[in-house]
Amino acid sequence: MSFSGVFPYLVSPIDQSGAVMEGVLTDLVDHLIDAGVHGLTPLGSTGEFAYLSQEQRRHVVDTVISANRGRVPVVAGVASTSTSDAVAQTEYMVEAGADGILAILEAYFPVSDEGVEAYFAAIAKAAKGRPVVLYTNPQFQRSDLTLPVIERLSHVENIRYIKDASTNTGRLLSIIERTRGRMEVFAASAHIPVCVMMIGGVGWMAGPACIVPRQSIALYEAAKAEDWAKAMELQRLLWRVNEIFAKYSIAACIKTALELQGFPVGAPMAPQAPLADAARAEIGAVLRDVGAL
Amino acid sequence: MSFSGVFPYLVSPIDQSGAVMEGVLTDLVDHLIDAGVHGLTPLGSTGEFAYLSQEQRRHVVDTVISANRGRVPVVAGVASTSTSDAVAQTEYMVEAGADGILAILEAYFPVSDEGVEAYFAAIAKAAKGRPVVLYTNPQFQRSDLTLPVIERLSHVENIRYIKDASTNTGRLLSIIERTRGRMEVFAASAHIPVCVMMIGGVGWMAGPACIVPRQSIALYEAAKAEDWAKAMELQRLLWRVNEIFAKYSIAACIKTALELQGFPVGAPMAPQAPLADAARAEIGAVLRDVGAL
Amino acid sequence: MSFSGVFPYLVSPIDQSGAVMEGVLTDLVDHLIDAGVHGLTPLGSTGEFAYLSQEQRRHVVDTVISANRGRVPVVAGVASTSTSDAVAQTEYMVEAGADGILAILEAYFPVSDEGVEAYFAAIAKAAKGRPVVLYTNPQFQRSDLTLPVIERLSHVENIRYIKDASTNTGRLLSIIERTRGRMEVFAASAHIPVCVMMIGGVGWMAGPACIVPRQSIALYEAAKAEDWAKAMELQRLLWRVNEIFAKYSIAACIKTALELQGFPVGAPMAPQAPLADAARAEIGAVLRDVGAL
Amino acid sequence: MSFSGVFPYLVSPIDQSGAVMEGVLTDLVDHLIDAGVHGLTPLGSTGEFAYLSQEQRRHVVDTVISANRGRVPVVAGVASTSTSDAVAQTEYMVEAGADGILAILEAYFPVSDEGVEAYFAAIAKAAKGRPVVLYTNPQFQRSDLTLPVIERLSHVENIRYIKDASTNTGRLLSIIERTRGRMEVFAASAHIPVCVMMIGGVGWMAGPACIVPRQSIALYEAAKAEDWAKAMELQRLLWRVNEIFAKYSIAACIKTALELQGFPVGAPMAPQAPLADAARAEIGAVLRDVGAL
Repeated sequence: MSFSGVFPYLVSPIDQSGAVMEGVLTDLVDHLIDAGVHGLTPLGSTGEFAYLSQEQRRHVVDTVISANRGRVPVVAGVASTSTSDAVAQTEYMVEAGADGILAILEAYFPVSDEGVEAYFAAIAKAAKGRPVVLYTNPQFQRSDLTLPVIERLSHVENIRYIKDASTNTGRLLSIIERTRGRMEVFAASAHIPVCVMMIGGVGWMAGPACIVPRQSIALYEAAKAEDWAKAMELQRLLWRVNEIFAKYSIAACIKTALELQGFPVGAPMAPQAPLADAARAEIGAVLRDVGAL
Repeated sequence: MSFSGVFPYLVSPIDQSGAVMEGVLTDLVDHLIDAGVHGLTPLGSTGEFAYLSQEQRRHVVDTVISANRGRVPVVAGVASTSTSDAVAQTEYMVEAGADGILAILEAYFPVSDEGVEAYFAAIAKAAKGRPVVLYTNPQFQRSDLTLPVIERLSHVENIRYIKDASTNTGRLLSIIERTRGRMEVFAASAHIPVCVMMIGGVGWMAGPACIVPRQSIALYEAAKAEDWAKAMELQRLLWRVNEIFAKYSIAACIKTALELQGFPVGAPMAPQAPLADAARAEIGAVLRDVGAL
Repeated sequence: MSFSGVFPYLVSPIDQSGAVMEGVLTDLVDHLIDAGVHGLTPLGSTGEFAYLSQEQRRHVVDTVISANRGRVPVVAGVASTSTSDAVAQTEYMVEAGADGILAILEAYFPVSDEGVEAYFAAIAKAAKGRPVVLYTNPQFQRSDLTLPVIERLSHVENIRYIKDASTNTGRLLSIIERTRGRMEVFAASAHIPVCVMMIGGVGWMAGPACIVPRQSIALYEAAKAEDWAKAMELQRLLWRVNEIFAKYSIAACIKTALELQGFPVGAPMAPQAPLADAARAEIGAVLRDVGAL
Repeated sequence: MSFSGVFPYLVSPIDQSGAVMEGVLTDLVDHLIDAGVHGLTPLGSTGEFAYLSQEQRRHVVDTVISANRGRVPVVAGVASTSTSDAVAQTEYMVEAGADGILAILEAYFPVSDEGVEAYFAAIAKAAKGRPVVLYTNPQFQRSDLTLPVIERLSHVENIRYIKDASTNTGRLLSIIERTRGRMEVFAASAHIPVCVMMIGGVGWMAGPACIVPRQSIALYEAAKAEDWAKAMELQRLLWRVNEIFAKYSIAACIKTALELQGFPVGAPMAPQAPLADAARAEIGAVLRDVGAL
């Protein structure tokens, strides 16, 4: 199985009692697949993996897999500070039917390159052949993957993708050049998707795709067809959505946008706060401008 | 109940299967109480709270409370990114018999001052009158407590202590001056205990006290008696232990030291790595110099 | 006068006695113009402006203007912590015949947005109508330009360009979208030139162009002609030169490369150190691979 | 010659035309010596060395030396990114009659430990036997001195002091323990002077001493006499002055305080801005509280 295209990071709708709201999550999955997304990624950053209990994480992924009914690949997030816990999470996700794993290292104390490498290799082994996507986000995670570690991990057979949220697009080109034929690159919302596609990326895994799925698909198809003029025209408009993400607390931002679009996904997990009215109005205006409201 | 003096951060001895090693943890508790420590703090930074499952955390605290047999106060760590999870942890610890709570905010996305304040206030409420110690460690945690937030939280009745691991000793004096009569300050291993005692601190909660308990007590008593010349003499020697902590991965460092002292507490949780031989030798040398081996 | 295309950052060749080596600088200017560069930028980062005295800075610019003989635009660097000093530098450069000013704010204490804006506005006024290029490099400078400040400065008539060396390519698109029609963007060596051209940039001002001028021109022309496939082919090869810059001390790196190419420009200013033999060999290998040696 | 006690960092009063205001600087020197300061330090951080031309720096030091009339030691600041420039500055200061050198490394590109060591060693040689004070301020300077470099430099005969403005008081104790008998430590305004005296420091070189000289002397004398109870009583009050420095732009802050005390030293160098009225009122209130207005 190989992954490419637009994989929205799904939100995790949790109600006041802590329960996963299966109904709205199922609706969102249907809506995104109808819009043409190429895959689904529960438990990314904007899926608030860092705020959920193990039970909530499992419930979210189970719900997504069930709602998906095999239509598109589901790449489930696994995140931990601890290797053994990450392995246990991976085993659960594989057993539950995930098609791939988005692998995240959280850290408290600094981790050596050897520790980082061993952590991701252990997840890859537990994934039993399913593709693994490395995910590094130095903005919010207290660890990062160095180029030599990425290069070494690209030789692990099922570590086949990386999503780098560093804002440093040049680093993506360095990764692509070093891992050609073994690893593919997905853009994050911190990058300009058209640029990443041009330098050889295969798509993006990102929160904004959850609120502008049709527009994201159109952009992806233009880039895939190497119609760069059209792609840039679409990109200029869509970039405002990414800018809003960088400006506001991003989990609150995407949940607000979905609420405006008619998906009552609830508030971000406390102590994160819902957005104030001015921010909601600004997000509404951007969504209208890009034809998403 | 009021806290002062030397509260070692206890390690969390976990075996290869993930089980808490009750025997050695009980021995360590006895050893530290025999040495005269004024309290015990399971699930601090060097207790590897960030690496343990909820079950492991509970098992560690249950074991410590049971081993302690009411001899000294037990201040149990509570740490989460999520308010509701932190409240649930607190309720468990209180029910289990903890005498106080060491409250830690982990973060992924940035948290506003209001969110930080609400998080700690919710823990304080769940602690049902037991004293709460705020713990901020900007070196390893992706959040920090500002002075205005600390000042506001000092007005919550049972938030009565703060342990600040920022390395900025001047900040401790600012806290002391702003919260006099409502909040007391414990030093962390990043501070010089004698200095913190001189400016008005009431003791320290720190990993090194776990491996040099008698020496820590002697230092505390000299400082308490305002025999500063003697205190500084003891401090100069002991400072080398704190320096070792700053040099090496600190959970690995303290577990290594305890192994050398005859407490087989095992390795730090992977992907943290055990220390190499040269580091073990260096730690051994320091322990011998301070009379702790 | 308008600027676009490839503007190499020139090195500042200084001998052991502190004198500017006019001969080799003149040779380098001739060589670059023969290779087709669209302009010359003395006193950028790799021009070691931060290490030169006022006399050396003036001597470097005078030499470049004299060697250029009006063939291409010369954009001279002005850098200071102090507004009055920056104005004096600008007046000198304009009087000496510079066609534009590359404006840099150095900082010791933090500067407010208002202070940043006033600093650059003062330079623009002193430039007497000549175009000003804002230069921000958060990697090495202790200040940065926020988007609102950039937007406000774009309304100053002769502030017409910005070179942003932040590694964050998405930020460039945000700048382009906000300042369309008033300000143009040049890429830095931290960005992928093809990406910056695609999103609307007009060229690049950077150190590497000094050592691969013909290859840079070919890349620029392919991008300008919107032959993106060819541009990316050239880009992949050339990216290795940018990677070397990120790996080694960049002033040492470019001086070493020029020495290998037959321009005896001397060592970087102490306490910067010349590169070791292994680094020289690695740079030589990259230059050979791209056909620049 | 040996240095200890309270050495105020002098401001650099510059008028609108860029001229050093000799009169008020002379008055300030007299005032501070009358108050009992043990030495004078022109061209420290709050002396705005980073904003002054070479001519202004020389003029400031010449004025201070002349006003001092040999009454106390004058330790003149030398700061540069370039070794040769730092040597030339040092030679000037020594020739002008400075009793010691405060040596500062500014940086643009990163400097290796060897480069840092060579830079300070070159200054020490140029100081021709006069004592050199290393000054490191990681908050505002783009370089820092590692413990091994400090230890190596402590073996240079006339490098006899260090002022570390890192806020990390524990680091000072580590320096003291490693360099005993060769190097002495001065506190900065980021540290609590009483703590630094207790751990073995010999005084402080700092901006606040310029506005509270008598109170600083009283504090120093209590600490020197090991009357720690009295020292802490004075310290608690004075700490508010240091807090104000950390809150506001510190050069603006001290110039404002001196204006309030009747020394018309002018505004900080643009693009730094004078303080707003609310800040002036707050500084005035603190000065009144400590008896300095």
